Amino acid sequence: MREKGSHRREDLDAVLGAGFLCHLGVVVDGAPMVVPTVYGVEGDVLYVHGSVASRSLVRAPDGVVCVTVTHVDGLVLARSVFEHGVNYRCAMVYGVPRIVTDPEEKLRGLRALTERSTPGQWEYARRPSRKELAATSLVALDLTEASVKVASGPPDDGDSPDAELGLWAGVLPLVTSFGTPVADPALPVDIRTPAHIADRAGRPLG
Amino acid sequence: MREKGSHRREDLDAVLGAGFLCHLGVVVDGAPMVVPTVYGVEGDVLYVHGSVASRSLVRAPDGVVCVTVTHVDGLVLARSVFEHGVNYRCAMVYGVPRIVTDPEEKLRGLRALTERSTPGQWEYARRPSRKELAATSLVALDLTEASVKVASGPPDDGDSPDAELGLWAGVLPLVTSFGTPVADPALPVDIRTPAHIADRAGRPLG
Repeated sequence: MREKGSHRREDLDAVLGAGFLCHLGVVVDGAPMVVPTVYGVEGDVLYVHGSVASRSLVRAPDGVVCVTVTHVDGLVLARSVFEHGVNYRCAMVYGVPRIVTDPEEKLRGLRALTERSTPGQWEYARRPSRKELAATSLVALDLTEASVKVASGPPDDGDSPDAELGLWAGVLPLVTSFGTPVADPALPVDIRTPAHIADRAGRPLG
Repeated sequence: MREKGSHRREDLDAVLGAGFLCHLGVVVDGAPMVVPTVYGVEGDVLYVHGSVASRSLVRAPDGVVCVTVTHVDGLVLARSVFEHGVNYRCAMVYGVPRIVTDPEEKLRGLRALTERSTPGQWEYARRPSRKELAATSLVALDLTEASVKVASGPPDDGDSPDAELGLWAGVLPLVTSFGTPVADPALPVDIRTPAHIADRAGRPLG
Protein backbone atom coordinates (compact mmCIF):
# COMPACT_ATOMS: atom_id res chain seq x y z
CA MET A 1 0.00 0.00 0.00
CA ARG A 2 1.39 3.36 -1.03
CA GLU A 3 -1.02 5.32 1.19
CA LYS A 4 -1.58 4.78 4.88
CA GLY A 5 -4.02 6.52 7.16
CA SER A 6 -3.56 6.84 10.90
CA HIS A 7 -5.25 8.29 13.95
CA ARG A 8 -2.33 7.59 16.28
CA ARG A 9 -1.06 10.50 18.29
CA GLU A 10 2.60 9.64 17.65
CA ASP A 11 2.02 9.79 13.89
CA LEU A 12 0.33 13.16 14.30
CA ASP A 13 3.21 14.44 16.43
CA ALA A 14 5.71 13.28 13.79
CA VAL A 15 4.00 15.28 11.03
CA LEU A 16 3.40 18.38 13.15
CA GLY A 17 6.96 18.16 14.44
CA ALA A 18 8.46 18.27 10.95
CA GLY A 19 7.35 21.77 9.94
CA PHE A 20 6.00 25.12 11.01
CA LEU A 21 3.57 26.17 8.28
CA CYS A 22 -0.04 25.05 8.01
CA HIS A 23 -3.01 25.87 5.84
CA LEU A 24 -5.93 27.08 7.91
CA GLY A 25 -9.37 26.56 6.39
CA VAL A 26 -12.31 28.60 7.63
CA VAL A 27 -15.79 29.16 6.26
CA VAL A 28 -16.64 32.78 5.48
CA ASP A 29 -20.20 33.52 4.33
CA GLY A 30 -20.57 29.90 3.27
CA ALA A 31 -17.38 29.81 1.22
CA PRO A 32 -14.06 28.25 2.20
CA MET A 33 -10.98 30.41 2.77
CA VAL A 34 -7.59 28.69 2.95
CA VAL A 35 -4.70 30.77 4.29
CA PRO A 36 -1.13 29.80 5.11
CA THR A 37 0.01 30.59 8.63
CA VAL A 38 2.41 29.36 11.32
CA TYR A 39 1.58 26.92 14.09
CA GLY A 40 3.01 25.51 17.29
CA VAL A 41 2.09 22.66 19.61
CA GLU A 42 2.02 22.64 23.39
CA GLY A 43 0.67 19.54 25.08
CA ASP A 44 -2.64 18.66 23.47
CA VAL A 45 -3.18 22.10 21.94
CA LEU A 46 -2.36 23.35 18.47
CA TYR A 47 -1.74 27.09 18.40
CA VAL A 48 -2.23 28.88 15.10
CA HIS A 49 -1.33 32.48 14.29
CA GLY A 50 -4.67 33.99 13.38
CA SER A 51 -3.72 37.24 11.65
CA VAL A 52 -5.55 36.96 8.33
CA ALA A 53 -8.27 34.56 9.43
CA SER A 54 -8.97 36.14 12.80
CA ARG A 55 -11.72 38.47 11.63
CA SER A 56 -13.58 35.56 10.09
CA LEU A 57 -13.05 33.48 13.21
CA VAL A 58 -14.35 36.21 15.48
CA ARG A 59 -17.38 36.62 13.22
CA ALA A 60 -18.18 32.90 13.33
CA PRO A 61 -17.02 31.83 16.79
CA ASP A 62 -18.86 28.47 16.64
CA GLY A 63 -17.50 27.53 13.24
CA VAL A 64 -15.34 24.48 12.74
CA VAL A 65 -11.93 25.03 11.17
CA CYS A 66 -9.56 22.62 9.44
CA VAL A 67 -5.81 22.94 9.86
CA THR A 68 -3.75 20.98 7.33
CA VAL A 69 0.01 20.45 7.49
CA THR A 70 1.61 18.89 4.42
CA HIS A 71 5.19 17.82 3.73
CA VAL A 72 6.04 16.82 0.16
CA ASP A 73 8.70 14.10 -0.03
CA GLY A 74 8.86 13.33 -3.72
CA LEU A 75 7.28 12.88 -7.10
CA VAL A 76 6.15 9.33 -7.84
CA LEU A 77 6.94 8.74 -11.51
CA ALA A 78 5.30 5.55 -12.72
CA ARG A 79 5.26 3.85 -16.14
CA SER A 80 1.75 5.18 -16.73
CA VAL A 81 0.48 8.70 -16.07
CA PHE A 82 -2.49 7.15 -14.24
CA GLU A 83 -0.20 5.75 -11.52
CA HIS A 84 1.68 9.01 -10.98
CA GLY A 85 1.44 10.59 -7.58
CA VAL A 86 3.18 12.41 -4.78
CA ASN A 87 4.88 11.01 -1.69
CA TYR A 88 3.79 13.14 1.23
CA ARG A 89 2.97 13.30 4.91
CA CYS A 90 -0.18 15.16 5.81
CA ALA A 91 -1.98 15.92 9.07
CA MET A 92 -5.49 17.35 9.29
CA VAL A 93 -6.84 18.74 12.55
CA TYR A 94 -10.52 19.66 12.88
CA GLY A 95 -12.28 21.51 15.64
CA VAL A 96 -13.99 24.60 16.92
CA PRO A 97 -11.14 26.96 17.68
CA ARG A 98 -10.80 29.04 20.79
CA ILE A 99 -9.54 32.61 20.47
CA VAL A 100 -6.76 32.93 23.05
CA THR A 101 -7.28 35.99 25.25
CA ASP A 102 -5.37 35.18 28.47
CA PRO A 103 -1.95 36.92 28.21
CA GLU A 104 -0.16 34.04 29.92
CA GLU A 105 -1.56 31.47 27.50
CA LYS A 106 -0.82 33.80 24.60
CA LEU A 107 2.81 33.90 25.70
CA ARG A 108 2.96 30.12 25.92
CA GLY A 109 1.32 29.79 22.50
CA LEU A 110 3.68 32.30 20.90
CA ARG A 111 6.63 30.50 22.44
CA ALA A 112 5.37 27.24 20.89
CA LEU A 113 5.06 28.96 17.48
CA THR A 114 8.47 30.59 17.70
CA GLU A 115 10.26 27.46 18.90
CA ARG A 116 8.53 25.32 16.25
CA SER A 117 10.06 27.34 13.41
CA THR A 118 13.28 28.43 15.13
CA PRO A 119 14.37 26.47 18.21
CA GLY A 120 16.32 28.73 20.57
CA GLN A 121 14.79 31.96 19.28
CA TRP A 122 12.39 32.46 22.21
CA GLU A 123 15.40 32.73 24.54
CA TYR A 124 17.33 34.91 22.09
CA ALA A 125 14.88 37.53 20.80
CA ARG A 126 12.99 40.19 22.74
CA ARG A 127 9.72 38.72 23.94
CA PRO A 128 6.36 40.38 23.38
CA SER A 129 5.29 43.28 25.56
CA ARG A 130 1.76 43.48 26.99
CA LYS A 131 0.82 45.83 24.16
CA GLU A 132 2.26 43.54 21.50
CA LEU A 133 0.52 40.54 23.05
CA ALA A 134 -2.80 42.37 22.87
CA ALA A 135 -2.19 43.10 19.18
CA THR A 136 -1.44 39.44 18.42
CA SER A 137 -4.25 37.13 17.45
CA LEU A 138 -3.78 33.52 18.42
CA VAL A 139 -6.12 30.59 17.97
CA ALA A 140 -6.11 27.35 19.97
CA LEU A 141 -7.40 24.03 18.72
CA ASP A 142 -7.55 20.74 20.65
CA LEU A 143 -5.63 17.89 19.02
CA THR A 144 -8.51 15.48 19.64
CA GLU A 145 -9.97 15.26 16.14
CA ALA A 146 -7.04 14.67 13.85
CA SER A 147 -5.92 12.30 11.16
CA VAL A 148 -2.69 11.59 9.37
CA LYS A 149 -2.10 10.30 5.86
CA VAL A 150 1.26 9.24 4.52
CA ALA A 151 2.12 8.18 0.98
CA SER A 152 5.55 6.65 0.47
CA GLY A 153 7.53 4.18 -1.56
CA PRO A 154 7.98 3.41 -5.26
CA PRO A 155 5.26 3.47 -7.94
CA ASP A 156 2.67 0.71 -7.97
CA ASP A 157 2.92 -0.49 -11.56
CA GLY A 158 6.14 -2.51 -11.37
CA ASP A 159 4.19 -5.78 -11.62
CA SER A 160 1.64 -4.55 -14.16
CA PRO A 161 1.75 -5.12 -17.94
CA ASP A 162 3.20 -1.58 -18.15
CA ALA A 163 6.49 -2.91 -16.73
CA GLU A 164 7.08 -4.38 -20.23
CA LEU A 165 7.16 -0.87 -21.74
CA GLY A 166 10.80 -0.49 -20.70
CA LEU A 167 10.19 2.93 -19.18
CA TRP A 168 12.05 4.27 -16.15
CA ALA A 169 10.01 4.49 -12.99
CA GLY A 170 10.83 5.63 -9.50
CA VAL A 171 10.72 8.55 -7.14
CA LEU A 172 12.24 12.00 -7.61
CA PRO A 173 12.78 13.16 -4.01
CA LEU A 174 12.11 16.71 -2.85
CA VAL A 175 13.91 18.13 0.16
CA THR A 176 13.37 21.48 1.84
CA SER A 177 16.57 22.81 3.41
CA PHE A 178 17.79 25.92 5.15
CA GLY A 179 20.17 28.18 3.27
CA THR A 180 22.83 30.51 4.59
CA PRO A 181 21.39 33.19 6.92
CA VAL A 182 21.10 36.62 5.28
CA ALA A 183 21.74 39.44 7.74
CA ASP A 184 19.42 42.44 7.80
CA PRO A 185 21.26 45.19 5.83
CA ALA A 186 20.57 47.47 8.81
CA LEU A 187 22.58 45.18 11.11
CA PRO A 188 25.96 46.42 12.43
CA VAL A 189 28.69 44.19 11.01
CA ASP A 190 30.03 43.22 14.43
CA ILE A 191 26.87 41.32 15.39
CA ARG A 192 27.47 37.67 14.62
CA THR A 193 24.83 35.13 13.66
CA PRO A 194 23.97 33.12 16.78
CA ALA A 195 24.66 29.38 16.66
CA HIS A 196 21.02 28.31 16.86
CA ILE A 197 20.45 30.06 13.52
CA ALA A 198 23.85 29.65 11.81
CA ASP A 199 23.96 25.91 12.52
CA ARG A 200 20.84 25.23 10.47
CA ALA A 201 22.41 26.29 7.16
CA GLY A 202 22.42 23.37 4.77
CA ARG A 203 20.24 21.22 7.03
CA PRO A 204 16.87 19.86 5.99
CA LEU A 205 13.72 21.18 7.59
CA GLY A 206 12.03 18.77 9.99
CA MET B 1 6.61 47.19 2.91
CA ARG B 2 7.31 43.53 3.67
CA GLU B 3 3.95 42.34 2.30
CA LYS B 4 2.53 43.13 -1.11
CA GLY B 5 -0.81 42.13 -2.54
CA SER B 6 -1.52 41.86 -6.24
CA HIS B 7 -4.31 40.99 -8.64
CA ARG B 8 -2.09 41.03 -11.73
CA ARG B 9 -2.19 37.96 -13.90
CA GLU B 10 1.58 37.85 -14.34
CA ASP B 11 2.07 37.72 -10.58
CA LEU B 12 -0.47 34.89 -10.36
CA ASP B 13 1.29 33.01 -13.17
CA ALA B 14 4.63 33.40 -11.40
CA VAL B 15 3.33 31.80 -8.19
CA LEU B 16 1.39 29.03 -9.95
CA GLY B 17 4.39 28.38 -12.20
CA ALA B 18 6.74 27.79 -9.27
CA GLY B 19 5.11 24.64 -7.85
CA PHE B 20 2.73 21.77 -8.38
CA LEU B 21 0.98 21.27 -5.03
CA CYS B 22 -2.00 23.26 -3.80
CA HIS B 23 -4.34 23.13 -0.84
CA LEU B 24 -7.94 22.78 -1.96
CA GLY B 25 -10.56 24.07 0.45
CA VAL B 26 -14.15 22.88 0.15
CA VAL B 27 -17.13 23.17 2.48
CA VAL B 28 -18.60 19.82 3.59
CA ASP B 29 -21.75 19.97 5.73
CA GLY B 30 -20.89 23.52 6.71
CA ALA B 31 -17.33 22.72 7.77
CA PRO B 32 -14.14 23.46 5.83
CA MET B 33 -11.99 20.61 4.52
CA VAL B 34 -8.47 21.44 3.32
CA VAL B 35 -6.69 18.75 1.30
CA PRO B 36 -3.37 18.82 -0.55
CA THR B 37 -3.52 17.91 -4.21
CA VAL B 38 -1.74 18.59 -7.50
CA TYR B 39 -2.69 21.25 -10.01
CA GLY B 40 -1.91 22.38 -13.53
CA VAL B 41 -2.70 25.44 -15.61
CA GLU B 42 -3.84 25.63 -19.22
CA GLY B 43 -4.78 29.01 -20.57
CA ASP B 44 -7.18 30.64 -18.13
CA VAL B 45 -8.10 27.40 -16.39
CA LEU B 46 -6.68 25.87 -13.24
CA TYR B 47 -7.02 22.09 -13.21
CA VAL B 48 -6.98 20.35 -9.84
CA HIS B 49 -6.83 16.62 -9.19
CA GLY B 50 -10.03 15.98 -7.32
CA SER B 51 -9.47 12.53 -5.81
CA VAL B 52 -10.15 13.15 -2.13
CA ALA B 53 -12.40 16.17 -2.48
CA SER B 54 -14.40 14.96 -5.46
CA ARG B 55 -17.19 13.33 -3.49
CA SER B 56 -17.77 16.56 -1.59
CA LEU B 57 -17.62 18.57 -4.81
CA VAL B 58 -20.14 16.36 -6.54
CA ARG B 59 -22.42 16.62 -3.52
CA ALA B 60 -22.27 20.41 -3.52
CA PRO B 61 -21.92 21.32 -7.20
CA ASP B 62 -22.72 25.00 -6.64
CA GLY B 63 -20.26 25.42 -3.82
CA VAL B 64 -17.36 27.82 -4.03
CA VAL B 65 -13.90 26.37 -3.47
CA CYS B 66 -10.61 28.05 -2.58
CA VAL B 67 -7.34 26.82 -4.02
CA THR B 68 -4.23 28.09 -2.25
CA VAL B 69 -0.66 27.67 -3.49
CA THR B 70 2.08 28.67 -1.05
CA HIS B 71 5.85 28.77 -1.44
CA VAL B 72 7.90 29.41 1.70
CA ASP B 73 11.08 31.37 1.03
CA GLY B 74 12.49 31.94 4.50
CA LEU B 75 12.08 32.64 8.17
CA VAL B 76 12.13 36.34 9.06
CA LEU B 77 14.05 36.58 12.34
CA ALA B 78 13.66 40.01 13.84
CA ARG B 79 15.01 41.53 17.07
CA SER B 80 11.60 41.11 18.67
CA VAL B 81 9.35 38.06 18.52
CA PHE B 82 6.49 40.37 17.56
CA GLU B 83 8.18 41.25 14.25
CA HIS B 84 8.96 37.64 13.32
CA GLY B 85 7.38 36.29 10.18
CA VAL B 86 7.75 34.20 7.08
CA ASN B 87 8.79 35.24 3.59
CA TYR B 88 6.43 33.56 1.20
CA ARG B 89 4.59 33.75 -2.11
CA CYS B 90 0.95 32.77 -2.01
CA ALA B 91 -1.82 32.61 -4.59
CA MET B 92 -5.49 32.12 -3.77
CA VAL B 93 -8.01 31.23 -6.45
CA TYR B 94 -11.73 31.27 -5.72
CA GLY B 95 -14.61 30.03 -7.79
CA VAL B 96 -17.34 27.50 -8.42
CA PRO B 97 -15.50 24.54 -9.88
CA ARG B 98 -16.57 22.55 -12.87
CA ILE B 99 -16.20 18.76 -12.79
CA VAL B 100 -14.44 17.86 -16.04
CA THR B 101 -16.30 15.10 -17.90
CA ASP B 102 -15.25 15.52 -21.53
CA PRO B 103 -12.45 12.99 -22.19
CA GLU B 104 -10.55 15.39 -24.46
CA GLU B 105 -10.52 18.13 -21.82
CA LYS B 106 -9.59 15.59 -19.16
CA LEU B 107 -6.57 14.62 -21.24
CA ARG B 108 -5.55 18.27 -21.63
CA GLY B 109 -6.01 18.85 -17.91
CA LEU B 110 -4.00 15.78 -16.94
CA ARG B 111 -1.26 16.84 -19.32
CA ALA B 112 -1.19 20.25 -17.59
CA LEU B 113 -0.93 18.55 -14.17
CA THR B 114 1.76 16.12 -15.31
CA GLU B 115 3.85 18.75 -17.08
CA ARG B 116 3.55 21.15 -14.11
CA SER B 117 5.26 18.71 -11.77
CA THR B 118 7.49 16.91 -14.28
CA PRO B 119 8.11 18.64 -17.61
CA GLY B 120 8.68 16.06 -20.34
CA GLN B 121 6.82 13.28 -18.55
CA TRP B 122 3.65 13.49 -20.66
CA GLU B 123 5.71 12.57 -23.73
CA TYR B 124 7.64 9.89 -21.86
CA ALA B 125 5.09 7.91 -19.84
CA ARG B 126 2.12 5.88 -21.07
CA ARG B 127 -0.89 8.18 -21.35
CA PRO B 128 -4.25 7.37 -19.80
CA SER B 129 -6.59 4.93 -21.48
CA ARG B 130 -10.32 5.68 -21.83
CA LYS B 131 -10.98 3.53 -18.77
CA GLU B 132 -8.31 5.28 -16.70
CA LEU B 133 -9.61 8.68 -17.82
CA ALA B 134 -13.09 7.72 -16.63
CA ALA B 135 -11.66 6.73 -13.25
CA THR B 136 -9.83 10.05 -12.87
CA SER B 137 -11.58 12.97 -11.22
CA LEU B 138 -10.52 16.38 -12.41
CA VAL B 139 -11.83 19.78 -11.42
CA ALA B 140 -11.57 22.99 -13.47
CA LEU B 141 -11.58 26.48 -12.03
CA ASP B 142 -11.44 29.75 -13.94
CA LEU B 143 -8.50 31.97 -13.05
CA THR B 144 -10.73 35.05 -12.91
CA GLU B 145 -11.05 35.51 -9.16
CA ALA B 146 -7.54 35.25 -7.81
CA SER B 147 -5.15 37.18 -5.63
CA VAL B 148 -1.47 36.99 -4.83
CA LYS B 149 0.38 37.96 -1.69
CA VAL B 150 4.15 38.10 -1.40
CA ALA B 151 6.21 38.78 1.73
CA SER B 152 9.89 39.38 1.18
CA GLY B 153 12.92 41.17 2.49
CA PRO B 154 14.57 41.70 5.87
CA PRO B 155 12.81 42.22 9.21
CA ASP B 156 11.10 45.53 9.85
CA ASP B 157 12.65 46.50 13.18
CA GLY B 158 16.07 47.66 12.01
CA ASP B 159 15.17 51.29 12.68
CA SER B 160 13.21 50.66 15.88
CA PRO B 161 14.52 51.05 19.45
CA ASP B 162 15.04 47.25 19.37
CA ALA B 163 18.02 47.77 17.03
CA GLU B 164 19.91 48.91 20.15
CA LEU B 165 19.56 45.46 21.72
CA GLY B 166 22.53 44.21 19.72
CA LEU B 167 20.67 41.11 18.54
CA TRP B 168 21.20 39.45 15.17
CA ALA B 169 18.35 39.87 12.73
CA GLY B 170 17.86 38.68 9.19
CA VAL B 171 16.36 35.98 7.08
CA LEU B 172 17.04 32.24 7.22
CA PRO B 173 16.24 31.11 3.67
CA LEU B 174 14.40 27.89 2.87
CA VAL B 175 14.86 26.18 -0.48
CA THR B 176 13.04 23.14 -1.82
CA SER B 177 15.24 21.10 -4.18
CA PHE B 178 15.10 17.86 -6.07
CA GLY B 179 17.29 15.01 -4.86
CA THR B 180 18.79 12.12 -6.80
CA PRO B 181 16.13 9.98 -8.52
CA VAL B 182 15.46 6.68 -6.74
CA ALA B 183 14.66 3.87 -9.19
CA ASP B 184 11.73 1.54 -8.46
CA PRO B 185 13.32 -1.64 -6.99
CA ALA B 186 11.27 -3.57 -9.57
CA LEU B 187 13.04 -1.76 -12.42
CA PRO B 188 15.49 -3.74 -14.60
CA VAL B 189 18.99 -2.33 -14.09
CA ASP B 190 19.51 -1.61 -17.79
CA ILE B 191 16.78 1.04 -17.90
CA ARG B 192 18.46 4.41 -17.46
CA THR B 193 16.92 7.48 -15.89
CA PRO B 194 15.75 9.77 -18.71
CA ALA B 195 17.35 13.21 -18.91
CA HIS B 196 14.19 15.17 -18.12
CA ILE B 197 14.18 13.48 -14.70
CA ALA B 198 17.91 12.98 -14.03
CA ASP B 199 18.74 16.58 -14.89
CA ARG B 200 16.59 17.93 -12.04
CA ALA B 201 18.72 16.40 -9.27
CA GLY B 202 20.13 19.17 -7.10
CA ARG B 203 18.02 21.84 -8.74
CA PRO B 204 15.54 23.98 -6.85
CA LEU B 205 11.83 23.52 -7.43
CA GLY B 206 10.18 26.36 -9.35
